[in-house]
Amino acid sequence: MRAVFARSGKLVCDHFEDLQPGPGQTLVKTLACGICGSDLHALKFMPPTAAGDRGIVYGHEFSAEVLENGPGTKGRFKPGTPVVTFPVVATANGVEGLGYSPNFPGGFAERMIVTEANLLEVKNGLSSDHAAMTEPFAVGAHAVAKARLDKDSVCVVVGCGPVGLAVIAGLKAKGYGPIIAADFSPRRRQAAETMGADVIVDPAKESPHSKWADFGVPVDRAAQGLLRAQGKSWGRPVVFECVGVPGVLQSLIDDAPAGSQIVVAGVCMEPDQIRPLSAIMKEIEFSFVFAYTPQEFAETLHNLQEGIIDVSSIVTGRVGLEGVQDAFEALGDPEKHVKILVDPSLR
Amino acid sequence: MRAVFARSGKLVCDHFEDLQPGPGQTLVKTLACGICGSDLHALKFMPPTAAGDRGIVYGHEFSAEVLENGPGTKGRFKPGTPVVTFPVVATANGVEGLGYSPNFPGGFAERMIVTEANLLEVKNGLSSDHAAMTEPFAVGAHAVAKARLDKDSVCVVVGCGPVGLAVIAGLKAKGYGPIIAADFSPRRRQAAETMGADVIVDPAKESPHSKWADFGVPVDRAAQGLLRAQGKSWGRPVVFECVGVPGVLQSLIDDAPAGSQIVVAGVCMEPDQIRPLSAIMKEIEFSFVFAYTPQEFAETLHNLQEGIIDVSSIVTGRVGLEGVQDAFEALGDPEKHVKILVDPSLR
Repeated sequence: MRAVFARSGKLVCDHFEDLQPGPGQTLVKTLACGICGSDLHALKFMPPTAAGDRGIVYGHEFSAEVLENGPGTKGRFKPGTPVVTFPVVATANGVEGLGYSPNFPGGFAERMIVTEANLLEVKNGLSSDHAAMTEPFAVGAHAVAKARLDKDSVCVVVGCGPVGLAVIAGLKAKGYGPIIAADFSPRRRQAAETMGADVIVDPAKESPHSKWADFGVPVDRAAQGLLRAQGKSWGRPVVFECVGVPGVLQSLIDDAPAGSQIVVAGVCMEPDQIRPLSAIMKEIEFSFVFAYTPQEFAETLHNLQEGIIDVSSIVTGRVGLEGVQDAFEALGDPEKHVKILVDPSLR
Repeated sequence: MRAVFARSGKLVCDHFEDLQPGPGQTLVKTLACGICGSDLHALKFMPPTAAGDRGIVYGHEFSAEVLENGPGTKGRFKPGTPVVTFPVVATANGVEGLGYSPNFPGGFAERMIVTEANLLEVKNGLSSDHAAMTEPFAVGAHAVAKARLDKDSVCVVVGCGPVGLAVIAGLKAKGYGPIIAADFSPRRRQAAETMGADVIVDPAKESPHSKWADFGVPVDRAAQGLLRAQGKSWGRPVVFECVGVPGVLQSLIDDAPAGSQIVVAGVCMEPDQIRPLSAIMKEIEFSFVFAYTPQEFAETLHNLQEGIIDVSSIVTGRVGLEGVQDAFEALGDPEKHVKILVDPSLR
């Protein structure tokens, strides 16, 4: 079959040997697979040796269709059933992460091997494109679950790429807010508004942290102490860091309200410098978050199927396997795209 | 009166003008004042300009005796009453931090001005030396309060200087444990044992993180996932960072169990570097903590008065004002001292 290999920092369309589902495994046909920021990071930062000579087939945000259930499966879903799964496959030698495994192809391939027990049927007429958004939006649901939010909490989302948009969707799905969202890109600010953010800020013009006061949250410790002494309280401030480049953590220590929980969902691949003393004086809390639980994944699929989360404005491009290299480049410009899907059936 | 000034990086015993308590203020006689690691840090790192030409009189861990209640006070405590207070004084122009104020002397002076309303009487025959330990041990109580602990939690305390010992005491006072404590210094390990730590580790010989498994806590994410899939659970891992030098945060990201809460109580005055990706993959949480609430301060005094916290092994030296400079130097060697008290009446 055809697949796109990440090979020595390049994306190459090449042949992948025919797949045979092993015990408990199901062979599926890839219907759609999103290109994730992590894929761009991996292509740039992953040492070539980790991939071996052949390279790795990326793609972990996929929807698929059952082709063949392997030995020892229960036949939960017959061929033709649309499905999604969180991107891991169980093997006799342990669990492999689909999309970063040197042994199994991810979704930038015509077919994949998945674990039958993990499959979720896509229902309610949800399109394969939108079903492929289950994975990235589960990331948002998880970040929200890791935030200690209450009905009074005020949230700032810094960065409105796919992770930030998924966080906004996750907050809205749970009824949390107000949500102040910030991004330098007009297109992404538009997407944040469509997703339901209450206040949208262009950080080139004003800091999102200038908005806390509008929702009754005092920013500095002295002002907080004064209000506390008067018996007053305010909504717990929570910041979602969805940028993932060096320097953002310290900027949040400097500018977020004292006592903020900063949920770090942006994946910074490089070392970063912070000044712990500033974080101490403001009693900042960093919660670094990763992935999601199976329950959060299933709940996200449910929210997509029921229209609680609407991703129709998110998918901004579709390419075949031959177009993946160009799509990676196009995603470098936030004005061009939010999410590009790979559809291996496109020529 | 006599006071020790931090002046251009040196400690100088010099004259401080006579003090007059203002509205709501009380003049007190300093009985004992601990030298804090923050004082050592401040002498080294605080820009001389912050102090003005005269310098600053440090000392925020003090016990005192009421001398004179100023105008507008309620006369809550008559002269001669032993008292403690958290080290701030309210003035017409705002709140000043005793021990770091250019306008008010801290406890390295014969007398101080404090706020009457904040005073707590020292009862039950608690000595002035031990009463002076209320402030540093309130720091431990606060760090413990900021940790999300439950009866199954397993705690590692990294660094057994005064902050680490206060954390151990705070954990014991609340009945939390087991407590694994680590310090390179034999003397500090001895102090940690006296304070009630359950397992004491010399990190030169073995990592404290080798002990998690003894209490059923799997360290790496894969092992945790496997146990979770089997329906097993384990005590929530909490690490107290009580060292405060660059590099410790990343070492804890590398070595602490996935999902750990790391309560950062050590005050690192220099910039520090971390690798956010490692923290993300392990879902590490950093809670930077500072000071304490008035309630935690009062509860700590209560615990000292009732013998719930025993600090008799903590105070290892006493000096007069002329001896402060030497004491600062002696505290650089962890084998010599845990806590040195300044008693301005000593000559």
